[in-house]
Amino acid sequence: MFAPIGEAAHLVARLDIGRAARKGIPEVVLADAKSDEQVIAIVRALLASSGCALVSRLRPATLDHLTHEFVETGAAVADVRRQAHAMALHAPGYVRPQTGGHIGVLTAGVSDIPVAEEARLVAEEMGCHVASLYDVGVAGLHRLLGPLQTLLTDGVAALVVCAGMDGALPSVVAGLSPVPVIGVPTSIGYGAGGKGHAALLAMLQTCSPGLTVVNIDNGVGAGATAALIANQIAAARSG
Amino acid sequence: MFAPIGEAAHLVARLDIGRAARKGIPEVVLADAKSDEQVIAIVRALLASSGCALVSRLRPATLDHLTHEFVETGAAVADVRRQAHAMALHAPGYVRPQTGGHIGVLTAGVSDIPVAEEARLVAEEMGCHVASLYDVGVAGLHRLLGPLQTLLTDGVAALVVCAGMDGALPSVVAGLSPVPVIGVPTSIGYGAGGKGHAALLAMLQTCSPGLTVVNIDNGVGAGATAALIANQIAAARSG
Amino acid sequence: MFAPIGEAAHLVARLDIGRAARKGIPEVVLADAKSDEQVIAIVRALLASSGCALVSRLRPATLDHLTHEFVETGAAVADVRRQAHAMALHAPGYVRPQTGGHIGVLTAGVSDIPVAEEARLVAEEMGCHVASLYDVGVAGLHRLLGPLQTLLTDGVAALVVCAGMDGALPSVVAGLSPVPVIGVPTSIGYGAGGKGHAALLAMLQTCSPGLTVVNIDNGVGAGATAALIANQIAAARSG
Amino acid sequence: MFAPIGEAAHLVARLDIGRAARKGIPEVVLADAKSDEQVIAIVRALLASSGCALVSRLRPATLDHLTHEFVETGAAVADVRRQAHAMALHAPGYVRPQTGGHIGVLTAGVSDIPVAEEARLVAEEMGCHVASLYDVGVAGLHRLLGPLQTLLTDGVAALVVCAGMDGALPSVVAGLSPVPVIGVPTSIGYGAGGKGHAALLAMLQTCSPGLTVVNIDNGVGAGATAALIANQIAAARSG
Amino acid sequence: MFAPIGEAAHLVARLDIGRAARKGIPEVVLADAKSDEQVIAIVRALLASSGCALVSRLRPATLDHLTHEFVETGAAVADVRRQAHAMALHAPGYVRPQTGGHIGVLTAGVSDIPVAEEARLVAEEMGCHVASLYDVGVAGLHRLLGPLQTLLTDGVAALVVCAGMDGALPSVVAGLSPVPVIGVPTSIGYGAGGKGHAALLAMLQTCSPGLTVVNIDNGVGAGATAALIANQIAAARSG
Amino acid sequence: MFAPIGEAAHLVARLDIGRAARKGIPEVVLADAKSDEQVIAIVRALLASSGCALVSRLRPATLDHLTHEFVETGAAVADVRRQAHAMALHAPGYVRPQTGGHIGVLTAGVSDIPVAEEARLVAEEMGCHVASLYDVGVAGLHRLLGPLQTLLTDGVAALVVCAGMDGALPSVVAGLSPVPVIGVPTSIGYGAGGKGHAALLAMLQTCSPGLTVVNIDNGVGAGATAALIANQIAAARSG
Amino acid sequence: MFAPIGEAAHLVARLDIGRAARKGIPEVVLADAKSDEQVIAIVRALLASSGCALVSRLRPATLDHLTHEFVETGAAVADVRRQAHAMALHAPGYVRPQTGGHIGVLTAGVSDIPVAEEARLVAEEMGCHVASLYDVGVAGLHRLLGPLQTLLTDGVAALVVCAGMDGALPSVVAGLSPVPVIGVPTSIGYGAGGKGHAALLAMLQTCSPGLTVVNIDNGVGAGATAALIANQIAAARSG
Amino acid sequence: MFAPIGEAAHLVARLDIGRAARKGIPEVVLADAKSDEQVIAIVRALLASSGCALVSRLRPATLDHLTHEFVETGAAVADVRRQAHAMALHAPGYVRPQTGGHIGVLTAGVSDIPVAEEARLVAEEMGCHVASLYDVGVAGLHRLLGPLQTLLTDGVAALVVCAGMDGALPSVVAGLSPVPVIGVPTSIGYGAGGKGHAALLAMLQTCSPGLTVVNIDNGVGAGATAALIANQIAAARSG
Repeated sequence: MFAPIGEAAHLVARLDIGRAARKGIPEVVLADAKSDEQVIAIVRALLASSGCALVSRLRPATLDHLTHEFVETGAAVADVRRQAHAMALHAPGYVRPQTGGHIGVLTAGVSDIPVAEEARLVAEEMGCHVASLYDVGVAGLHRLLGPLQTLLTDGVAALVVCAGMDGALPSVVAGLSPVPVIGVPTSIGYGAGGKGHAALLAMLQTCSPGLTVVNIDNGVGAGATAALIANQIAAARSG
Repeated sequence: MFAPIGEAAHLVARLDIGRAARKGIPEVVLADAKSDEQVIAIVRALLASSGCALVSRLRPATLDHLTHEFVETGAAVADVRRQAHAMALHAPGYVRPQTGGHIGVLTAGVSDIPVAEEARLVAEEMGCHVASLYDVGVAGLHRLLGPLQTLLTDGVAALVVCAGMDGALPSVVAGLSPVPVIGVPTSIGYGAGGKGHAALLAMLQTCSPGLTVVNIDNGVGAGATAALIANQIAAARSG
Repeated sequence: MFAPIGEAAHLVARLDIGRAARKGIPEVVLADAKSDEQVIAIVRALLASSGCALVSRLRPATLDHLTHEFVETGAAVADVRRQAHAMALHAPGYVRPQTGGHIGVLTAGVSDIPVAEEARLVAEEMGCHVASLYDVGVAGLHRLLGPLQTLLTDGVAALVVCAGMDGALPSVVAGLSPVPVIGVPTSIGYGAGGKGHAALLAMLQTCSPGLTVVNIDNGVGAGATAALIANQIAAARSG
Repeated sequence: MFAPIGEAAHLVARLDIGRAARKGIPEVVLADAKSDEQVIAIVRALLASSGCALVSRLRPATLDHLTHEFVETGAAVADVRRQAHAMALHAPGYVRPQTGGHIGVLTAGVSDIPVAEEARLVAEEMGCHVASLYDVGVAGLHRLLGPLQTLLTDGVAALVVCAGMDGALPSVVAGLSPVPVIGVPTSIGYGAGGKGHAALLAMLQTCSPGLTVVNIDNGVGAGATAALIANQIAAARSG
Repeated sequence: MFAPIGEAAHLVARLDIGRAARKGIPEVVLADAKSDEQVIAIVRALLASSGCALVSRLRPATLDHLTHEFVETGAAVADVRRQAHAMALHAPGYVRPQTGGHIGVLTAGVSDIPVAEEARLVAEEMGCHVASLYDVGVAGLHRLLGPLQTLLTDGVAALVVCAGMDGALPSVVAGLSPVPVIGVPTSIGYGAGGKGHAALLAMLQTCSPGLTVVNIDNGVGAGATAALIANQIAAARSG
Repeated sequence: MFAPIGEAAHLVARLDIGRAARKGIPEVVLADAKSDEQVIAIVRALLASSGCALVSRLRPATLDHLTHEFVETGAAVADVRRQAHAMALHAPGYVRPQTGGHIGVLTAGVSDIPVAEEARLVAEEMGCHVASLYDVGVAGLHRLLGPLQTLLTDGVAALVVCAGMDGALPSVVAGLSPVPVIGVPTSIGYGAGGKGHAALLAMLQTCSPGLTVVNIDNGVGAGATAALIANQIAAARSG
Repeated sequence: MFAPIGEAAHLVARLDIGRAARKGIPEVVLADAKSDEQVIAIVRALLASSGCALVSRLRPATLDHLTHEFVETGAAVADVRRQAHAMALHAPGYVRPQTGGHIGVLTAGVSDIPVAEEARLVAEEMGCHVASLYDVGVAGLHRLLGPLQTLLTDGVAALVVCAGMDGALPSVVAGLSPVPVIGVPTSIGYGAGGKGHAALLAMLQTCSPGLTVVNIDNGVGAGATAALIANQIAAARSG
Repeated sequence: MFAPIGEAAHLVARLDIGRAARKGIPEVVLADAKSDEQVIAIVRALLASSGCALVSRLRPATLDHLTHEFVETGAAVADVRRQAHAMALHAPGYVRPQTGGHIGVLTAGVSDIPVAEEARLVAEEMGCHVASLYDVGVAGLHRLLGPLQTLLTDGVAALVVCAGMDGALPSVVAGLSPVPVIGVPTSIGYGAGGKGHAALLAMLQTCSPGLTVVNIDNGVGAGATAALIANQIAAARSG
């Protein structure tokens, strides 16, 4: 029940673990609980160490601040996604990878798009091709079936499905698709079960195996996991 | 904010309200929080006053007790629904009404059937014809679409849809049907949102107008409301 | 537990479902989680396709925006309900239906009126006549009994009852009325059970059969369901 | 924010507080979280010190155990209330007080009676006359109004009102009565808001001033407070 | 389970209830969920009917609005309690009653004072003398014991005790006092159990009989109940 | 917001979706909310249609019942996992697939093993090789690091990590591993956050991208998703 | 945000951490979520490695099983605490340490004693002298003040205070004592905030600095921390 | 169950408790629920009585107000910690104690630093030396192990560990350290379990004995307890 430091280090020291296998998931800076100064300092460090920094949950002023600090000075090129309140910064010379991974991102409604776009940015930074299919909630099955079939035929390796309110879309999609589905509840909806809580619980209670879940509005986590799966498959295919 | 009895009675006394319009909803005795003696006393009173008594949430021993007390003595004829843990008792000579009302009762899974059967019993006691369609959850849309269309073509006036776990079926049905849908969350499912709570919240968060909700496992309330709607329509049609 | 798209489509394709029966519920645009640009785009599409658009949960600026975009340009005529933070937009030449349906809308207090007015607008758009009876909470039974009797005598087919705080009014009304009652908890009340949560739970726990519930502040859902019932009855009567 | 013992005792020591005014509330032993041995030891001590002991939430075996230990040995006379799962034990020669206090105890349904009887026993032990009025829930206003008026005319000083499910009765009674009302939610009801939680929240959200609340199933606390009020008034009246 | 209006009215009409006994609790207008126009209209009606109106949870602008509308025009005299965000308005010639009732109001901390002052205003409007004892939380027992003894010796009939955070004071006071105690949780405290929720639950879980509870921040309800008790006792004493 | 059946079917009918791509996830029968008769009927149907049936959450008596019905009659061969309360039944001649997929299953403690074993059974039924690593919670990092490294070197495509109480292990594992991690909260732990709720929330709040979550004790969902990923990769590698 | 194993091990390997300082907290086996076989296996391993094993939350049958396996065979000597549902097992020759640490354990009521005894056993195993003071809840301050002063004068280094229901005692004790207090909510109490939840929240909301908290019924954690503090002080004093 | 004041005082008066042992924890004024006037009055009183006042949860305007009132007038010297929204005020001539106590304060992320700094200020006011180690969350174990070992080697007597989101760091640190650890959940994180709730629950569910918890963001309570422990040890050491 208790391992004092010395003992743990002793054991670890004997390991022959070899070379680190990198996940290829970039650091993502959650800006909303940090001061602009903290965000800028972390971004600077990331650009220096990896050539690339993702920032999510940006206040508009922080976005301006970052633009002023890095883009206007030429220290970085920015890929800004205003709808997602997110941006990617790339140091000069940094080239975004192309892994051959392919995923799809769906939303039930137009209000879910910011979260979907956050997922898309992360997956693109990880080198994936991302197809999006928005506003196809279960209340309109006719808008879902055909385009979903097209996505699957195109060979997406995983699907990110964003839905608020009753959160039914991910279960329906997982029931129809032969690939892993990552459900993202969004903070849409009011009253009992509002702000994404009913959606989260409904996804956790799904009858469709193959559906796993991330926290409400966590587009970053969903996009990163989907890309991780897609990149593994792309590597296996080419490997 | 406060109306002492005298004043309220004074006002009420001046009302000329006329003849009571009866809803035609029978008293339903919830047996599980009552002693057998209490249940028997209430059933006896109901049989005497209205010729009919419904009892739900029966313990097996209470069912035996009631059978012994009323059926074996010839004091009543019983319509027992074991799956629903419910029964209807009719005094000799009591004739169940036939209103011409028509409703449908659906379930997402087989575990939801007891609640559906409770709804069916109440609606039948209220004189409705009840069509049932069980185990047609959203994970298998192909089992739902055809039979639902048949129900609608047959002219059901309202649908009771029972679902536990993610509770998605009522929303899907309401999105596909031109009649009022009453969602009944069932206490199926475990973990976060289990025991019907996710299902309830998902139904409250529905995007499908035309869906209203009763409490978890409240088959009685759903069946009574659906029958009330169907009976009104039948009366209007014949009226 | 899992139906891949192809199989579902295969089954669906064999169905002979015939002509779509329309519910007659207009699309309602929830404006609060959308940008003005999104709201305007959706309204434009709805006006083009159906001649009518309902918008609820309007920010004041969005209301101005819509007025500027559609009313001042003559693209639509607006029926604005400021108390309800809602509006209906009708394309030139659009005529609101008159179904002969008749419902009543009640509130426990004056603070519940915005939700009631939202329900009223939807039901009116669906062609119903709507009678309202506001500020008749259970603390003053003398204000309720007479006017409720008048409503029932006038032949309302369903009642929408809005109440916050202890949410007792819908149960009392359902106990007194031979028609279906739709309870709408409102986000009135503070402390434990505040913001409509006690009201919702109390309505779910009702002893009055015939009462079903929608989510907190969901005037749209309640109005649409009540109108659906009333329109069915009107059709049966005339039919 | 912090007062070490010495300092507090120092201040307390200087107080000249005089004779303790006794509330006259007997000790009540909650038996359910104690072993039989603990219950017996506490009862023995109470009988020795005050001549009287109340025990609530009795397991049947504990009741037998107490009867064997105290009643069969002549160590005490017992007033057993089986419905309430409670009993009072009086040492030989102990005479229950008669204060002239007068209260009423109401229930919404028959399932609430055990809690009401617990309240009645405590109030009787405190010397009050207790009138009871059971099964008068809001779904049947006609069963409530007349008998409540009789209670008030008889001069009850306070009312204990027990209700589960939607918990509406205490608010209605408080709206109709010129005396303090103590609401007791009972653990009746299932699903969302079940086990008394909706009832508690609804009582806390009441619009009727004059209503205060105790915890779910706390008949002891409600009975004791009502008797305290009634005894104060009886004392004031007599002088 | 169901009483249609006609039947209830029929029964009520036969009652001979006599003259309404008035509780003497004034109407209190919760201003925060109403528009200024609604508040002014209600106040005007109350002044006309009873000569007196209490308004709580006032926005500063609403207070100004009311002052402008009623005080500056001479339509009423105002007793403003800024700390309590409340005011009483009296029509010219209205004389506040003096019942001889006597209560005490305590707070655990200085942050609880606004709620206590709301309780005090209501009780004073109901004719009571109100003694206050603020900032005497359990962390400083030495500040509580002496002054509480003085209150009790002075003959208070009931105590209102306001406490946030851990809500321990009402239990301690009820354990020390021979009069009914009404606990008011206040929305003070952050984190788990914050905003008064821990305080409410702790008061509901009290071991001290004689303590009843109102909702978080409900100074109005607590003050009204305490005054009701005190006025009954004063009436009995003088009667 | 509403698509009547006819219209949806119309659209669907025009789709040319082609051959269903199968996920290869077997139907899993949750036995605990079904009667033995229902379970047996479903198993019989599954054996007939697919040659294989998985049953989870078995009561001991249901397990005996199934054994008697299918194994003793030679209708199926059973792979019983008592720790997991689960079994797989295979019709004679059914050969479990071998996909070449490879996953790892970890637990924080020994109490989490039943859930892990449920995941393992599902993944093995789907053709995966499953390596297990149990009782390696964060309180003993020295027990985790080496064996985890071995798993990763062996080429697992995904990890299922089961943990109750504080649920920290999945985050730590996801932080150390370049493959997708599926966290399964287990219903271990008591008090606040007990029964897996703290574990679930902690996993949802993870800082480690690459971690997704299923509901408490949902070994089936986690195992199926992990196997889905592993099988995709195996197919890509061989393909 | 992500450290693959190899990199972490690399860094750890360079550390020169020296000799492990042992906390001296014995492993405690939570028996309730484990099979008897698992408990016996773990106890055997602990006895072999450290000469001592603590087992808590014992089912009676598991206790018998352990006694049969270890005590009757002479493999260990047992210190059984039936009230605490716990036991310590010592291999022959094992001598419990005597650290000179000194703590106090208090309870509010007799129902809290099992948790307190669990804390006492752990602290005694860690070598502390433990003074206990039971049934001194805030409803009887006179039973608390003197004995608490005696404990403090005797030099306890820390206090464990166990309380259910309103959980007020730890705050009062922390307000009166110059040593750290560890509050243990116990699962005593019913209704809202029952099973220790109100007690936990009240302790978290305490105004008394110097009070920290463990989870409901976690006597082990409280006893271990108090002993850790006391042992440090004893070591410093002697050192 | 009830001790009237007189009796309690009587008992207390007989105690011979001697000199108050002071905890040495300064009063901390929570500014956020108080008006500036209240804060200033309390600070003035504290400066007069003890020479020192700590103020936490300062609004910027209140900080300015206090500076203007006390610092600019020379009435006090201020130690302002802007990140912590806190300040200490010392009357002229007041000398902060130096106890020789030594603690460490850790954070999982940069967003947790304000809470950590609040803890640090309190501990420094109590005379401790405080070492800080920030941004060492479990996602990067390599940043934690070495510096933690240094802290322990330096002889810290207790550790305060602040973490939001999944709250895993305190458990990991407690598993690695031979001194008491005080976990402080911080209100970082969104969605389910956000604002520190998952972190609190995870800490309460810890498997690491030696970890106790304070409420979310309660840096004051954690710092005070850690300093209390450290000061006791320093006193014991010096002897």
